[in-house]
Amino acid sequence: MFDKVYDVIVVGGGHAGAEAAAAAANLGSKTLLVTMSLQNIGQMSCNPAMGGIAKGQIVREIDALGGYSGIITDKSAIQFKMLNKSKGPAMWSPRAQCDRMRFAEEWRIALENTPNVDFYQEMVSGLLIEENKVVGVRTSMGLEIKSKSVVLTNGTFLNGLIHIGDKQMGGGRSGEKASTGITEQLVALGFDSGRMKTGTPPRVDGRSLDYSVMIPQPGDLHPETFSYLDTKPLATQRECHMSHTSALVHDLLREGFDRSPMFNGRIKSLGPRYCPSIEDKINRFADKDSHQLFVEPEGWNTVEVYVNGFSTSLPEDVQFKALRSVKGFEKVKFFRPGYAIEYDYFPPTQLKHTLETKLIDHLYFAGQINGTTGYEEAASQGLMAGINAHLKLNEKDPFILQRDEAYIGVLIDDLITKGTEEPYRMFTSRAEYRTLLRQDNADLRLTPKSFKIGLATKERMERMELKEKQSNSFIQFFKETSFSPEEVNPILERLDSSLVKQPDKMFKVFSRPKVTMDHMKELDVVSTYINQNSLDREVLEQTEIQVKYSGYIAKEKNNADKLQRLENIKIPADFDYSNIKSLSFEAREKLKSIKPISISQASRISGVSPSDISVLLVYMGR
Amino acid sequence: MFDKVYDVIVVGGGHAGAEAAAAAANLGSKTLLVTMSLQNIGQMSCNPAMGGIAKGQIVREIDALGGYSGIITDKSAIQFKMLNKSKGPAMWSPRAQCDRMRFAEEWRIALENTPNVDFYQEMVSGLLIEENKVVGVRTSMGLEIKSKSVVLTNGTFLNGLIHIGDKQMGGGRSGEKASTGITEQLVALGFDSGRMKTGTPPRVDGRSLDYSVMIPQPGDLHPETFSYLDTKPLATQRECHMSHTSALVHDLLREGFDRSPMFNGRIKSLGPRYCPSIEDKINRFADKDSHQLFVEPEGWNTVEVYVNGFSTSLPEDVQFKALRSVKGFEKVKFFRPGYAIEYDYFPPTQLKHTLETKLIDHLYFAGQINGTTGYEEAASQGLMAGINAHLKLNEKDPFILQRDEAYIGVLIDDLITKGTEEPYRMFTSRAEYRTLLRQDNADLRLTPKSFKIGLATKERMERMELKEKQSNSFIQFFKETSFSPEEVNPILERLDSSLVKQPDKMFKVFSRPKVTMDHMKELDVVSTYINQNSLDREVLEQTEIQVKYSGYIAKEKNNADKLQRLENIKIPADFDYSNIKSLSFEAREKLKSIKPISISQASRISGVSPSDISVLLVYMGR
Repeated sequence: MFDKVYDVIVVGGGHAGAEAAAAAANLGSKTLLVTMSLQNIGQMSCNPAMGGIAKGQIVREIDALGGYSGIITDKSAIQFKMLNKSKGPAMWSPRAQCDRMRFAEEWRIALENTPNVDFYQEMVSGLLIEENKVVGVRTSMGLEIKSKSVVLTNGTFLNGLIHIGDKQMGGGRSGEKASTGITEQLVALGFDSGRMKTGTPPRVDGRSLDYSVMIPQPGDLHPETFSYLDTKPLATQRECHMSHTSALVHDLLREGFDRSPMFNGRIKSLGPRYCPSIEDKINRFADKDSHQLFVEPEGWNTVEVYVNGFSTSLPEDVQFKALRSVKGFEKVKFFRPGYAIEYDYFPPTQLKHTLETKLIDHLYFAGQINGTTGYEEAASQGLMAGINAHLKLNEKDPFILQRDEAYIGVLIDDLITKGTEEPYRMFTSRAEYRTLLRQDNADLRLTPKSFKIGLATKERMERMELKEKQSNSFIQFFKETSFSPEEVNPILERLDSSLVKQPDKMFKVFSRPKVTMDHMKELDVVSTYINQNSLDREVLEQTEIQVKYSGYIAKEKNNADKLQRLENIKIPADFDYSNIKSLSFEAREKLKSIKPISISQASRISGVSPSDISVLLVYMGR
Repeated sequence: MFDKVYDVIVVGGGHAGAEAAAAAANLGSKTLLVTMSLQNIGQMSCNPAMGGIAKGQIVREIDALGGYSGIITDKSAIQFKMLNKSKGPAMWSPRAQCDRMRFAEEWRIALENTPNVDFYQEMVSGLLIEENKVVGVRTSMGLEIKSKSVVLTNGTFLNGLIHIGDKQMGGGRSGEKASTGITEQLVALGFDSGRMKTGTPPRVDGRSLDYSVMIPQPGDLHPETFSYLDTKPLATQRECHMSHTSALVHDLLREGFDRSPMFNGRIKSLGPRYCPSIEDKINRFADKDSHQLFVEPEGWNTVEVYVNGFSTSLPEDVQFKALRSVKGFEKVKFFRPGYAIEYDYFPPTQLKHTLETKLIDHLYFAGQINGTTGYEEAASQGLMAGINAHLKLNEKDPFILQRDEAYIGVLIDDLITKGTEEPYRMFTSRAEYRTLLRQDNADLRLTPKSFKIGLATKERMERMELKEKQSNSFIQFFKETSFSPEEVNPILERLDSSLVKQPDKMFKVFSRPKVTMDHMKELDVVSTYINQNSLDREVLEQTEIQVKYSGYIAKEKNNADKLQRLENIKIPADFDYSNIKSLSFEAREKLKSIKPISISQASRISGVSPSDISVLLVYMGR
């Protein structure tokens, strides 16, 4: 029925699936996206927001690589905030509230406008396998569709089971069917599978809320964008609000604990530790009698509201009674209750760095199927799986990002090296070199790499090059241009910084902690330079960060380079650990299972000790 | 959990449910719309179009009554056509292609902006009944929601079963779950239920079609609107295209007939006669070797295309192979295959004119659950059920439209009097007085009635009154103003109409078949009158129709008035037919079951003969 063998079939149309399809297709692979519902492509299943701490950096990285998530966020955003602006730039994290319907629509339009992406609506219930190689998929209606590779991005749909109180029902999301067949087949093929759990809060009717007693949470005064391309920052924004739970609310919730599937043993799998349900929070932090709730609009026009912080699988009546005791929620009406969902995942140590499975050639996993949580984590995996599926078909080198190059590199290396037993979420603390992995320089870090493999467009590359050239020149300007004490002392005095007595290079004053680009701009010579060179906000920011944090950056770069030496000591894929008796038994087992590609990766495997690494170094001839 | 007893709970958020909720709420009833998916409110499940012959008139009637379908169609239209413009105005039927996503979004926004409408997402699996009275609903999660009345608008979801070739799967629509529990409970309560079938064609990728070999189907040069309010006509439109099946296509389809659920006995229920599947058409009209296909875009931005005329439940490979042989479809790619769906309905003779069930008080049925097909038929029933649910709760007279007042009156009277064993679709031929039931005068016919019960707004009423006043004055102008032969003869000569010799009233010339308003406008006195009175297109059209068809209209009005006499002979609700031995046995049974409210309705029941009516007339004292 399909008159060709597709290069790549992507199963699932969520954040992972959509990025995978776009990447493979943009690289030139004939791609088919198969989803149970074409209407639900690009759905935000949980909160209507993209980005946040570490996650915002990932979206910037996706964009720098030529993925779509940043552009689509910009097009559908209703509010923008740069989080952590009071901390160092390594911590700055963009976050946007989005219009849920618009976000999905923009994804659909973007994919439809991507040549090489075909669509088909059907449940995939199995894979076609020939000699440990995937050769297509089988739908629940019995249709066989041939392909050279398959990317599975099933999200929470594989044998999804929804819990509300003591009620359970099959489903991949509220109101949507679960997907069956794939797990059973993969397990029969030798894969390990496990169960994970996640949850979502009630959606409520904004018309029933009293915002006057809540704390307004406006967006940034000068909103930025996620994409390095020329998407437009928001001209108007919608406000969010904050409210709080109370001891009373907690008491009311506790009344339902005996009917909670989290506490009565019905849900056995683990949920996301850093995105806990409200009942979890009460239970774990018994001394806290208040938790924050963020009241987030679901779009420009809708009255539907997302109650961030109130994820729960308690019985509906308990959810309702408790939420009615929250300030501003006294008359709340529910659109739908919160719920928990259990689903199948596959421990990601079964994958290579390319996200290809070790067991079945040309089969890739991306997103929640790998045990992660979060749209951004899913989208970035989809992007990388889509890229690598294409590259392998074309016998090109795999596209692997190192831990000092991208959060995406950290994410995938963590997953495949350490595995995860609870939903894995990105944090800045997971990165050894977070000063290098900033949201402001994702383009400088990644666009050239992506341009080289043919994904990032020429336009994207040229914009990056201009930014790099302009900021380097501007830095040079600060290094070469001298100031007079008369010029800068008034500023230093105002900042309560010690005055200077003789002329020196501007770089030196600019490096002082309290001095910012805004102060430097007060100097005529600087403002003239900026105007003459038409430098934009991004170039000023880049220059400022590189000047002010040059010491930290250089130090971390140095550390990263040291590690790179270990990274460069590759271990052959077919290396036989069995006979190396000097390795501990545990190390041998883990090394055989994970098959690290380098000494560096081997060192990150839990159970592999420094002495095991010394042994390996000897075997690698060092 | 819901802190009040709702006045009206509407189950289902399709065309029927959405109109029902809006009507009840706008009248002042506290209304809850419960749906399995809030995201799918206002879905166009089948073709992305509203209106058409007789159906367009219904949408105009819905709008005249204060329903939303017309406004939403106007807001989401991508192409407008007034069908049958070459025939008399009784046949003129507006039709609009719509943007499927926009249509659903506009419904969602409209309902959210209707005070008194609350929302809840859950499957309703049963009704709460106390002493033959409905008092609420029960959800599949066990939640009980109380109400004083319930409107069921379950569409194709009740025990929905999807067929493609010899494959079957449960589902209410492609990719959506079926609804269970309600049929079983209603049958236990004494309701008769049956099965019906409907179908839908494949959706395909517009990028894969060769439009250059198809026949363009543009919209009207001067598009109009559905709503009598001031929605804007389209400034730009999207084109549709036409192609045709061929003998080869038919042969290819026939190859799958042995695997067709329509022909191998798997589907037993009846589908819509006038919206047959392509295999039905080939089978029934074996001598025709070509059928029209309309290629309809699904929206402004999407490449998805609806293949109108190719509804089918043949196996996917057969659908595909055959469609590839259609001109312009040689390289077609499928988004999803066509399919058939079987679902439960309840023979509508179990309803009163208000759409309340005879068995259970305050329980109403609207839409496909009553055995109808079509968005417009469904929407109008929803509107009437919502109105009557509200009126009954407030002990007001029921709102019933007569057969000479509205297509909606014909529809409901047909349903409850004659029942239906196959999906019921409206046609102009079903109306005895179609010259009265035109698309141009639905406001004049219905807005005053709706304004009286408090549904149509003051604005709507005032617009109607102005139009009525202006057109009546304009007609009067033509009746009173004389022309001179010198003025009109040049026009008559051009039209090859016999010349006049002496002055006469303008009305007389205007009444001639070939003379139109455009010709009359050539006369200075007419154009001056139009300008001085700022008459708009609608007033000109209304005036023209009333002048040119005054004879037909008067005659039909006269006939309708005669019938009205029989309509006015009411039969008491508790009238006992059992002992009237002079009635035929069949008539007695049917009359006992249908419980007609008037002699007129009794006369329309199949099996009730003129002699039975004579007997009844005697009993009614005539």
